[in-house]
Amino acid sequence: MSEATSGAGAGYVPAELYTEVQQFYARQMNLLEGPAADPDAWARTFTEDAVFATAGEPEPPAGRENLRDTVRAGVEHIAAQGLDFRHWFGMVGVERRPDDTLRTRYYALAMATARGGPLKVRGSMLCHDELVRGDDGRLLVRRRSLDADGRER
Amino acid sequence: MSEATSGAGAGYVPAELYTEVQQFYARQMNLLEGPAADPDAWARTFTEDAVFATAGEPEPPAGRENLRDTVRAGVEHIAAQGLDFRHWFGMVGVERRPDDTLRTRYYALAMATARGGPLKVRGSMLCHDELVRGDDGRLLVRRRSLDADGRER
Amino acid sequence: MSEATSGAGAGYVPAELYTEVQQFYARQMNLLEGPAADPDAWARTFTEDAVFATAGEPEPPAGRENLRDTVRAGVEHIAAQGLDFRHWFGMVGVERRPDDTLRTRYYALAMATARGGPLKVRGSMLCHDELVRGDDGRLLVRRRSLDADGRER
Repeated sequence: MSEATSGAGAGYVPAELYTEVQQFYARQMNLLEGPAADPDAWARTFTEDAVFATAGEPEPPAGRENLRDTVRAGVEHIAAQGLDFRHWFGMVGVERRPDDTLRTRYYALAMATARGGPLKVRGSMLCHDELVRGDDGRLLVRRRSLDADGRER
Repeated sequence: MSEATSGAGAGYVPAELYTEVQQFYARQMNLLEGPAADPDAWARTFTEDAVFATAGEPEPPAGRENLRDTVRAGVEHIAAQGLDFRHWFGMVGVERRPDDTLRTRYYALAMATARGGPLKVRGSMLCHDELVRGDDGRLLVRRRSLDADGRER
Repeated sequence: MSEATSGAGAGYVPAELYTEVQQFYARQMNLLEGPAADPDAWARTFTEDAVFATAGEPEPPAGRENLRDTVRAGVEHIAAQGLDFRHWFGMVGVERRPDDTLRTRYYALAMATARGGPLKVRGSMLCHDELVRGDDGRLLVRRRSLDADGRER
């Protein structure tokens, strides 16, 4: 396949990069939701100064430490309720900027199932991430912006 | 990995092509559903003579112009209702034909959320596309065939 | 992209392997759910001695023959009810072991639509597969372990 007809030529990113992002997201969310949920490891998938913004809400304090505390409280709250929580990401688009950072756009679907209960779809979101590489070359989220579907605008 | 054990060797398409299709679909549907919804740009992801067929319904007039008009009306109707609409594609299979066209098969899930309301799953579909390349090498849909789950047969 | 920054360098598998797994799953489940449902072909995507385990239930008899019989009965039961059944796999993680077998982890969502009825989400599962290669190099499932969300623990 010539460059002109390759994914890159059509404004897409190469397969290695695209599948790296897919694998990054699968691993990241599994760190919240699998049997091996680990809020500390999840927080380390963000930069030290990361921002986690939700449209329509005040921007929360930045930084990995704040993220870790927030998500640990969330994981404990979910566990106390006996819920199995799942986040699915789909329809992922990836753009590489001249400075080698990545901008991604994806849909996220949040679902939860109580012990012995039916699955409930909590809602969907349109998400944008800014991804950078850490010193060891791994992807890290520098900014995540969520916009919940159905939000009053 | 030898050819014998590669994805291509097992009747699959190479990673560059597979991820190009994934990125094409993510971008195409974002042209309908993102904050930057653009029915004109969406229509340009189809060939001039494209057919958009729905099982059990008469085949509509072919062509990009008709598609654009239909989808623009749909986008305006959805906006008037205040809905955030999302289409997810998943479980994508890609086959490359000897003439270099692609046949794809995938599931699509349609979801909508009203302002301040809960997400509603509208339904799922089994979809088949015929994809070709335009003069600039980009993928274009020449035929899209939808078959809604639950349809009376 | 240097090795240090590639997906492989971050503990991920290369794009060819990742997309092969994605294509394998899409094809496998289409063998159960598409118009061309074929329980025999589906069973041949498992090894002769495959195990299909469900958490909280006794481990069923191993082997491709047992799987085929079980799934054929399931397909017939679903057809008799007039349901369109869909399984989506998402958030796939792939790990390559030193012996070249693969361990995968993914979420699965089961959905069904009755003739003329609405789509119902049946539930979600956390799944783990052990994949090996057959003599012809194709992927085969040697073990599939499902853990339904909401299961009493």
